[in-house]
Amino acid sequence: MKKDKKNNYYKTIKNGTITSVPGFFAGSTSCGLKNSGKRDICIIYTPETSVCSGVFTTNKFQAAPVILDRQKIQKNCGIRAIVVNSGIANACTGKIGMENTVKTAKIASDIMGIEEHEVLVSSTGVIGKQLPMEKIENGIKKSYAALDPEGGSGAAEAILTTDLIKKEIAVKIDLGEGKEIIIGGIAKGSGMIEPNMATMLAFIGTDAKISESLLDKALKDANQVSFNSISVDGCQSTNDMVIIMANGNSGIDMDEESYEKFTIGLIYLMKYLAKKIVMDGEGATKFIEIAVSGASDDLQAKKSALNIANSNLFKTAIFGQDLNWGRINAALGASGCEMDPDNIDIFLGGEMIVKNGIGVAIEKDKGKKLLSKKEIKIAIDLKYGKGSWTIWTSDLSFDYIKINALYHT
Amino acid sequence: MKKDKKNNYYKTIKNGTITSVPGFFAGSTSCGLKNSGKRDICIIYTPETSVCSGVFTTNKFQAAPVILDRQKIQKNCGIRAIVVNSGIANACTGKIGMENTVKTAKIASDIMGIEEHEVLVSSTGVIGKQLPMEKIENGIKKSYAALDPEGGSGAAEAILTTDLIKKEIAVKIDLGEGKEIIIGGIAKGSGMIEPNMATMLAFIGTDAKISESLLDKALKDANQVSFNSISVDGCQSTNDMVIIMANGNSGIDMDEESYEKFTIGLIYLMKYLAKKIVMDGEGATKFIEIAVSGASDDLQAKKSALNIANSNLFKTAIFGQDLNWGRINAALGASGCEMDPDNIDIFLGGEMIVKNGIGVAIEKDKGKKLLSKKEIKIAIDLKYGKGSWTIWTSDLSFDYIKINALYHT
Repeated sequence: MKKDKKNNYYKTIKNGTITSVPGFFAGSTSCGLKNSGKRDICIIYTPETSVCSGVFTTNKFQAAPVILDRQKIQKNCGIRAIVVNSGIANACTGKIGMENTVKTAKIASDIMGIEEHEVLVSSTGVIGKQLPMEKIENGIKKSYAALDPEGGSGAAEAILTTDLIKKEIAVKIDLGEGKEIIIGGIAKGSGMIEPNMATMLAFIGTDAKISESLLDKALKDANQVSFNSISVDGCQSTNDMVIIMANGNSGIDMDEESYEKFTIGLIYLMKYLAKKIVMDGEGATKFIEIAVSGASDDLQAKKSALNIANSNLFKTAIFGQDLNWGRINAALGASGCEMDPDNIDIFLGGEMIVKNGIGVAIEKDKGKKLLSKKEIKIAIDLKYGKGSWTIWTSDLSFDYIKINALYHT
Repeated sequence: MKKDKKNNYYKTIKNGTITSVPGFFAGSTSCGLKNSGKRDICIIYTPETSVCSGVFTTNKFQAAPVILDRQKIQKNCGIRAIVVNSGIANACTGKIGMENTVKTAKIASDIMGIEEHEVLVSSTGVIGKQLPMEKIENGIKKSYAALDPEGGSGAAEAILTTDLIKKEIAVKIDLGEGKEIIIGGIAKGSGMIEPNMATMLAFIGTDAKISESLLDKALKDANQVSFNSISVDGCQSTNDMVIIMANGNSGIDMDEESYEKFTIGLIYLMKYLAKKIVMDGEGATKFIEIAVSGASDDLQAKKSALNIANSNLFKTAIFGQDLNWGRINAALGASGCEMDPDNIDIFLGGEMIVKNGIGVAIEKDKGKKLLSKKEIKIAIDLKYGKGSWTIWTSDLSFDYIKINALYHT
């Protein structure tokens, strides 16, 4: 069963967000963590005790909320709320940092009248700074008071840091016979983006009725081809997490077919949010898709695509709109993947630019036109095996340097 | 036996270069490969049939001269000359490219009256362009006519591309009892610099009388801690090579002690040239040393140091002179190396900035002062094992983007 263009199993909901999912509420406010006075704290809440799964950064330095949430999800006792703050990452903050994360969950559970273990905590922002707990407490109170079935967009705004745009979506999955389930999500991230994972947060809600093990499998499978297939600067963060909560509100028992439809919809939703992160990449002027096929296996395809995505020389060439195919070849060859350099074809926007490892003569105007687009599609056929993978990335511009050199701690 | 500050076994020769070595000659000229009219071709020559060793890029895309030279050195029939051109890399040029490399050696051997297999060829510059063989032939003739025992500096200039400065050095090694051997070398490289190897060329001559296997060992050992320990942008090139020729002119038989002194001198020389490449890194405003100690082994130390060196967020922070220790932590933690994040100390210019994984409060002025220097030394103690490694790198500046985005093929 595959998605069919004429007969989609899912469709996006207009102005959809996490609270488009029945039974999900969100409230957000500004509690003074950001100097700008913008929203910087939110609560995502569902009254049902939800089945929950999460994927987390593999960085050895893990922020306190990452450590705490992983433990809570492993215990599998159900989750009802997530408190997210932006502005301060609560990473590399030692014992006090961990105490503050525990305290955040405690404050929220007390105010909301739920169990402490039912509250997850998430933070993003500057590393090494402690959370001002009075402000946090105040922010939680206000966010709780603001809880609203239409509060998703406010939450999507409250989790942003250097992001320029909100990232939110909801999809409706048609299970036939009038039955449907909804998935909605919000995400943030624009720098320190690299698979496994990025400085990125994503929170997804669904009214699917699903077991913890199936939800876990769906999330991990979808994560591989979405958030784990993007790279802005190859830098991996200390705080990343993707959390999904399923409150079971739909009441529809999940069978094999509906699980497959659910996963297809979830992949679509997560790819959408992942691509939005790349488009909003720090200083990005281009959105680049790198699709490698014909690799010895999928992992080799992913590795070679990522090596191109993380090549500063490739990224600056795309920024400069120069058809420098030699830099693609060099990055491919440096990936350490199995390939025959004399048997590689490369396409730019459908146009062949490298044939059997050697550049194809292309008129300067044509090359310029291909590269003047905002979305750049590069397809590479290694003609070696059956592995394939697609990675999304952005270019490397003056503004990336500006944002990251002039951003002071 | 170790180098002693009071009793060095080697000293640098004033204005030393590759032709400071007895029996080495160089000639260079402009043959029209560079639009600037600057020198772009040279010959390095020693009349003796020399013992030779080389290390080459591990990129799957290998330039024609890399393939040819590797074969010639493997055959171990002695080398007398190297022809180097800059401006065109002769990489990704297919059959014609290989024919042109073979032809270059043939032309040079005919003109010089030596065997074809005694001539190595090296190229650096733009990928994907064919060598204009008439210009090359003309350049070889002129370079041969210009061969001079003081021609080293001209050759050091002729091999440059985006480099701003020449890189050359010679050292004299004192073997005691009035006996001495000389090593001299030149190098180029400023972008696409990453271990194993970089877009870098280095040519080294010595009058040591040494077996092929010992020379090979010395070169490979020295290469690990010099050219394989630098990174400008993490991009690995198609053309890199380090070639050493030993013409035996000193007449001194090599024993265990003199071999060790020779290796120490060679390491010094190669580190000097490697560091010069980093200092001349594209757009570099800082020279950064990252020394990791206390890793589980040397390779883990190298891997973690390199992950910091190649972190765009770290590099932009240093460019912006911001004491963002969180980005060092994040890059360390993302390296995948064995460590205990709560037990890591980091020093900047001798000053402790992270203690047991957490930032040490440092006055803003002091931090700024530490980072305002041109040379930045970062020492990291993982307190985990006995492995250590030092990597040299540069920062990531507006000019890197300018050079690489506005450089058009």
